[in-house]
Amino acid sequence: MSSTLRRKLVPVALSIIALLVAAGAWLIGCRSTGGNATATIVSGDADSVIAARGLTPADVYAAVKTYQPSGKKDEYVLFASGGHSGQVLAVGVPSMRLLKLIGVFTPEPWQGWGFSRDTRRVLDEGDVDGKSIHWGDTHHPALSETAGDYDGQFLFINDKAQARVAVIDLRDFETKQLVKNPIAMSDHGGSVATPNTDYVIEGGQYAGPLGWRYASLEQYQQQYRGMVTFWKFDRKAGRIVPAESFSIEVPPYWQDICDAGKKVSDGWAFCNSINTEMATGGIEQGKPPFEAGVSKRDMDYLHVIDWRKAAQLVAAGRARTVNGFRVLPLDVAAKEGVLWFVPEPKSPHGVDVTPGGDFIVVSGKLDPHVTVYSFAKLQQAIAAHRYSGKDVFGVPVVDFDAAMEKQVELGLGPLHTQFGPDGYAYTSLFLDSAVARWTLGGPYASLHPEAPWTLVQKVPVQYNIGHLSVAEGDTVSPDGGYLVAMNKWSVDRFLTVGPLHPQNFQLVDISGKGPSMQVLYDMPIGIGEPHYAQMIKADKLKAWEIYPQIGWDARTMTADATAPQAGKERFVRNGNQVEIWMTATRSHFTPEHIQIKKGDHVVWHVTNVETAKDATHGFTLPGFDVNLSLEPGETETFEFLAEKGGTYTYYCTEFCSALHLEMVGYMTVQG
Amino acid sequence: MSSTLRRKLVPVALSIIALLVAAGAWLIGCRSTGGNATATIVSGDADSVIAARGLTPADVYAAVKTYQPSGKKDEYVLFASGGHSGQVLAVGVPSMRLLKLIGVFTPEPWQGWGFSRDTRRVLDEGDVDGKSIHWGDTHHPALSETAGDYDGQFLFINDKAQARVAVIDLRDFETKQLVKNPIAMSDHGGSVATPNTDYVIEGGQYAGPLGWRYASLEQYQQQYRGMVTFWKFDRKAGRIVPAESFSIEVPPYWQDICDAGKKVSDGWAFCNSINTEMATGGIEQGKPPFEAGVSKRDMDYLHVIDWRKAAQLVAAGRARTVNGFRVLPLDVAAKEGVLWFVPEPKSPHGVDVTPGGDFIVVSGKLDPHVTVYSFAKLQQAIAAHRYSGKDVFGVPVVDFDAAMEKQVELGLGPLHTQFGPDGYAYTSLFLDSAVARWTLGGPYASLHPEAPWTLVQKVPVQYNIGHLSVAEGDTVSPDGGYLVAMNKWSVDRFLTVGPLHPQNFQLVDISGKGPSMQVLYDMPIGIGEPHYAQMIKADKLKAWEIYPQIGWDARTMTADATAPQAGKERFVRNGNQVEIWMTATRSHFTPEHIQIKKGDHVVWHVTNVETAKDATHGFTLPGFDVNLSLEPGETETFEFLAEKGGTYTYYCTEFCSALHLEMVGYMTVQG
Repeated sequence: MSSTLRRKLVPVALSIIALLVAAGAWLIGCRSTGGNATATIVSGDADSVIAARGLTPADVYAAVKTYQPSGKKDEYVLFASGGHSGQVLAVGVPSMRLLKLIGVFTPEPWQGWGFSRDTRRVLDEGDVDGKSIHWGDTHHPALSETAGDYDGQFLFINDKAQARVAVIDLRDFETKQLVKNPIAMSDHGGSVATPNTDYVIEGGQYAGPLGWRYASLEQYQQQYRGMVTFWKFDRKAGRIVPAESFSIEVPPYWQDICDAGKKVSDGWAFCNSINTEMATGGIEQGKPPFEAGVSKRDMDYLHVIDWRKAAQLVAAGRARTVNGFRVLPLDVAAKEGVLWFVPEPKSPHGVDVTPGGDFIVVSGKLDPHVTVYSFAKLQQAIAAHRYSGKDVFGVPVVDFDAAMEKQVELGLGPLHTQFGPDGYAYTSLFLDSAVARWTLGGPYASLHPEAPWTLVQKVPVQYNIGHLSVAEGDTVSPDGGYLVAMNKWSVDRFLTVGPLHPQNFQLVDISGKGPSMQVLYDMPIGIGEPHYAQMIKADKLKAWEIYPQIGWDARTMTADATAPQAGKERFVRNGNQVEIWMTATRSHFTPEHIQIKKGDHVVWHVTNVETAKDATHGFTLPGFDVNLSLEPGETETFEFLAEKGGTYTYYCTEFCSALHLEMVGYMTVQG
Repeated sequence: MSSTLRRKLVPVALSIIALLVAAGAWLIGCRSTGGNATATIVSGDADSVIAARGLTPADVYAAVKTYQPSGKKDEYVLFASGGHSGQVLAVGVPSMRLLKLIGVFTPEPWQGWGFSRDTRRVLDEGDVDGKSIHWGDTHHPALSETAGDYDGQFLFINDKAQARVAVIDLRDFETKQLVKNPIAMSDHGGSVATPNTDYVIEGGQYAGPLGWRYASLEQYQQQYRGMVTFWKFDRKAGRIVPAESFSIEVPPYWQDICDAGKKVSDGWAFCNSINTEMATGGIEQGKPPFEAGVSKRDMDYLHVIDWRKAAQLVAAGRARTVNGFRVLPLDVAAKEGVLWFVPEPKSPHGVDVTPGGDFIVVSGKLDPHVTVYSFAKLQQAIAAHRYSGKDVFGVPVVDFDAAMEKQVELGLGPLHTQFGPDGYAYTSLFLDSAVARWTLGGPYASLHPEAPWTLVQKVPVQYNIGHLSVAEGDTVSPDGGYLVAMNKWSVDRFLTVGPLHPQNFQLVDISGKGPSMQVLYDMPIGIGEPHYAQMIKADKLKAWEIYPQIGWDARTMTADATAPQAGKERFVRNGNQVEIWMTATRSHFTPEHIQIKKGDHVVWHVTNVETAKDATHGFTLPGFDVNLSLEPGETETFEFLAEKGGTYTYYCTEFCSALHLEMVGYMTVQG
């Protein structure tokens, strides 16, 4: 060793042992300053930056309103579907920072989702006709509710493309269950939680023969049907119970979105529909395309459902069985006081129940008004049989005027409505590219200074808004303050990143009264096309920082007594069946050598035996499509058949420590 | 129709036809205000927000420095690996907003990546031993360079787990090619582009028998080897050319990261290494674990490679062939002036070449210094044979003192270094959780006011920084201004979203001189564990807004003359072979009916015939694991065997227009 070198090397106090200890100890702590680092905080000159960048007073307001200094936490979490990414996004509000992508229908290796045996088994629950489907078209996230308020325990999300519903546990933000709807291939009107999460509602979308069996389009009216499914949720188990769930058969109109009644309308559900024309398209044969055929009538039908009554009838044996699933037949629903229709104009899309459960707001995307129905009037009309007739399937159609409370003209392309705490409603206007604030009447009239049922302000958004989400906006007690406009087109808002442009979430300040709404922030979404979102107060979430015990099985949410434990690592061979119990800790796996033979079938368990927050280890066995994300305490398993001889290096994929790169082992396969 | 209803319906001027036209026309334009919307912009009171939120002057400076008002574009794009998400992230700087996730090694359905026939074929190029690997451990993105500057044309990214390299075309931000390294299973030291992108360098990581064939660990020194691979890049074709590529066999040390020489050192590559101990672990047998065994020696070896000489020798037939790939043998490399070693302290991790190519900065993660080598001294030492000996494989070891220019003490756990335009260097300190600014000497000394080779400031980061990235920091002309600290642990920085915590990208202001660095922004990364990133000036990117022609094949980047065109849609049956040519436009597919039979094999092409920016259509055939993202002009194909009878509704998955929900068709499968 040269003399220069010797002088420069680490002194004894910083020997490797000391550093290893330091790496462990320091990483556990949360330091806001950097040990020996000489920190100099410079305030900078904000005014000169404002001038140089040409920021307006509104810009500065927005900047200081949304900026989070390091370590300051956001007030809300927005759970947004990822659209056809098949995932869910958790976004902090007001900073609009993506906190986590949650793997749901699509495998995601950073979190190990679908790359271990047991996470893959959850994905396999969503198989269709025995075929793996490794994506989804996630639409409507629904937070679990207690007494009509978000309780922060679970999140549900549907896959429109394959009519599936997923259950996410908000203790660890992981997907625990997928259920495939046994009678329909597509859905749209869900997920919606009932006020105490007894059921998760999944409404259908495109009609088809139940069980998606073959039927010619000529048999559309006879053979095709819609559905609304009520999935029974067992809160304690954290699982949907298919055997206790049921569907209601409805006509082959295209059911769209649903909302659950609450408070005075608890026990009811409301789903709108399009294509009461029962158009079947055929542009290639010179027939009107679906877009025209489906939009011909001035009115479609709001479906009004007494789901408690439906559940009673199903329990009483009035259901038939389709693909092993209980379905309440359409004629029973129509005759027995489960299903009514109310006309709704025009090309309906949104249906939203006010916080008190007293009004149902419907938007027709080709009608510049929102139409507000009174639940009380609706009940009276049903009781008094104020029907304008029956549809062709025998479902009573409630007289429009008897149920309608008010129509409010807002603008072009109204879609969805959310509510604030102050008697304001907010409706997205797709064609206007705007958010409308308008006033509710009735018991809400005293909460705002304006006249009831009046447009207050339209704020432009960029561009073509679909859904919108207000803080706690679907509950019996909305928070208001913030609104997120979920814009479908961004066009010129962001740097060009190729022909596939991001979506644009715009945060809107709705904290003031009157015409005071202001767009605060543009968040590009270059990772999916979120459809809908719900926003929950962050302090309602009680997510775990680490798993409660070493050897935790995140699928069963219990400690696995058979999981690998420190000091009990082992390799067991039984013929050509090999089983391995391995542990991971900073900065090594135990064991570091795995010697197997060609033809061996290997079951391999790994437990992260750490208890420090954020001390996650990854584990990959290269060449075998395996990647585990092992959070502190967690155990995971994978298995494979060793089909050829070779030498493979397994290693930690999550940068865990100074000697992370050295956290490695060799697997040799002889033969 | 009731009288109330008639009054409320859309007037004639807003008939469905007008709305359809409007939907089309309005969506194309870029409106910064919302049509008829009554906009009221309220500035709000920034001062009261600052007071209420307790923001410091530094916070306000950071807020106004990073905030982007709606429509204002970011200055830089940071291309970050997604780590074991297998993807690449494109992030706008300074706003730190995720502009796009680019699907690379992992299927991603929002962008249709892996859910069409031809995107799946690209993924299949990365198969290992015939097995699909649907994730990757992306490490080092490398922008293509011209004369040592980023040119904005291509991005390369490696998969450490399976030793693969991907090519991304920055015209459309899509992955075009995967190559699997034929001789090694793991890599780390790349991707690195040579100054004119003649080659993409991929250095190995964990040694193994070449071709990952079986060899016992007892045979480590005899049988195991490292590698450095030089992938020839054909810029015109936009493809790596494996037949013109080669590897250099190196000893079974664990090669780590590489950097390419530039300017005076153009033609050279520098890769560091750990485990010159050739430790083989075995903690379960009471042997030192890898973390200790690999870190025993005070010095490992910086690999110094004359790659132009290597290419000449390979062209001259001096390579042997392993798995069909040309490999320059170790003894040839050692004897013929291709490979030298220089001692480097201790547990080396980072190696970075200064902008002028004149110095090589190495960090040993267990040494508090960075070690700076002079390329001129190194060349002189090689010319003068100033060797301290040879390693056991016969590679000449250059005398440390002969090549070393300076050692600068920075702190604990130094990893990687980046450079500014002003003679400052920036080194990440993992154990200190800090970024160090220090001064270069030599020709850089006149660019800064401080003494050369001196620590200027350490700014704490939260927490445990791995790589860092400075604007244009790997080029011959760094921009400076911004630095992103890529922190591995976030611990307490964000809301808890379960035991798997986000990573933390921190934006650091490095625009001033002296000890003026300030952390500006914390960006949670809850979608991967980015390893390294490069940051390019946004105006260098010339990404397409739409595809240049209708019928564009994004795999070949040419117009496909056989692609579906408007007016030429068709359905052709030939026995049980069915081929479909379909078009998509707002708001219909043509055709809308597909009638096939059980047992049919179907090849189905869809072209988006739109030319408006952002007019993307999705396409799914539910139940068949198909989802296409069709940007304007693009054509895609999928195929399947109809294994059972049924009725399926295909639809547009990207919210394209007011009548998007009606953009649908029925496929019936008889039988």
